[in-house]
Amino acid sequence: MTTSSGNRLPDEKVREYLQFAGALADAARDVTLPHFRSVVSVVDKSGDESAFDPVTAADREAEQTMRGMIRDKYPDHGIVGEEFGDHPAAANSDPPVTWVIDPIDGTKSFIAGFPTWGTLIGINDGGGAVAGIMDQPFTGERFTGGPDGAALDGRPLRSRSCDGLAAATLYCTDRSMFATDRQRDIFDRVAARAALTRYGMDCYAYCMLANGSVDLVIEGSLKPYDIQALVPIVRGAGGAISSWTGGAPEPGGLVVAAGDPTLHAQVLELLADGI
Amino acid sequence: MTTSSGNRLPDEKVREYLQFAGALADAARDVTLPHFRSVVSVVDKSGDESAFDPVTAADREAEQTMRGMIRDKYPDHGIVGEEFGDHPAAANSDPPVTWVIDPIDGTKSFIAGFPTWGTLIGINDGGGAVAGIMDQPFTGERFTGGPDGAALDGRPLRSRSCDGLAAATLYCTDRSMFATDRQRDIFDRVAARAALTRYGMDCYAYCMLANGSVDLVIEGSLKPYDIQALVPIVRGAGGAISSWTGGAPEPGGLVVAAGDPTLHAQVLELLADGI
Repeated sequence: MTTSSGNRLPDEKVREYLQFAGALADAARDVTLPHFRSVVSVVDKSGDESAFDPVTAADREAEQTMRGMIRDKYPDHGIVGEEFGDHPAAANSDPPVTWVIDPIDGTKSFIAGFPTWGTLIGINDGGGAVAGIMDQPFTGERFTGGPDGAALDGRPLRSRSCDGLAAATLYCTDRSMFATDRQRDIFDRVAARAALTRYGMDCYAYCMLANGSVDLVIEGSLKPYDIQALVPIVRGAGGAISSWTGGAPEPGGLVVAAGDPTLHAQVLELLADGI
Repeated sequence: MTTSSGNRLPDEKVREYLQFAGALADAARDVTLPHFRSVVSVVDKSGDESAFDPVTAADREAEQTMRGMIRDKYPDHGIVGEEFGDHPAAANSDPPVTWVIDPIDGTKSFIAGFPTWGTLIGINDGGGAVAGIMDQPFTGERFTGGPDGAALDGRPLRSRSCDGLAAATLYCTDRSMFATDRQRDIFDRVAARAALTRYGMDCYAYCMLANGSVDLVIEGSLKPYDIQALVPIVRGAGGAISSWTGGAPEPGGLVVAAGDPTLHAQVLELLADGI
């Protein structure tokens, strides 16, 4: 992503871009939904069959559709996407705006037919993610986050308070997403102290955290396009999200989100002790 | 459940009961859906906070509603449910018909806001589960199984063939559902040989197996009302389902379902070696 001068986008511009993000989600939905629950051809990006990282025709086609729309509407903006790499924002743009998109976050759930995948569209102004959408075309739900808070189909979302880790419901898409035994051990130690740990759910888990029905999401090996759209949704609902060391979550990697900022601080301490 | 004389229900009666099961699901939906994503009071059945086995007001109210409808329409039929225990079929009924119901299978997902729970309604004629419904009120999907096969909202479902365990997608709601270390070890050994293992999804996983997008579901500690509605859906789609030892799946406990009967046989052999 293009380095920022430090200037941030004014809220009115963020709102404009968030509205356009809605048009992008509409367009992506028209591509992805007809492929959902249909037979899809699975191509393994890694070339390693055991890795099972499927890419569907829908994923690629939806990303190309969104990229085309962004280039037409905002030719100076950058684009970061899963399938077609990074396109930097114009060098003279200030602040530089980058669209961080993943047409199908949760491809394994998509392929297996579960409605917990989502289309992620994040807007980054060089200082961080300022607005985002998680769109679930099958259920018809659109989660948004930005300067006016978080919402589900326009209804405001508030995360819930939580009386400490021992009372927390923790979600993680898959324990295998932790890259090292040490990361997995640290996760397991936190999970053992939570009231309940459950797996699966992809981007949907962050949205249920914003919805106030999940307390904690701890994940690893995330890419920028896996998380940037979700950052404004979590924060807009009153939650906290960062890397495991308390840094910016935008680069991805190891991420922890909590509906209650006090719980987030408690878990950061545990993660710091482990790291 | 009342012991059977060995007589089975004729298909025309099963169809009649399956139609009534649809009315039960409609009634349950009217109770459960308004509670979904609303704040629910969580009562821990076990009295043990760490067990986290929540029962919602919706669960209890929906079961009472369905029980009342069954008693009014078929007073001789038996009822087995999660919340209010067993009511045996009349001693002189032949074959004895029992309704095996769970208004909210996947209460943890329900409470966390994920649309992967379902209302389960199974019809058992003393010889086994002959028809069943899995209804997901939020997505508006109704999976059915019976003498005319399996269907989603009336559209026929067919499970898919699978080229052996190494090519299989395996689902399990939660690894903690295995009651002993030995069961967990055996599961882990099978999972390690699958192409992909994922967790979560409750009853929805069996329906995606019937849909032909999941190959294998292996679970443990199931109650009769967790599985009986799903048996005719799996079998009606062409899949196979049994206990880990190849016996009837209706009692619950350790259950294995496969979209491809050949895969089912392969996994049964592995499970038998382990047991």
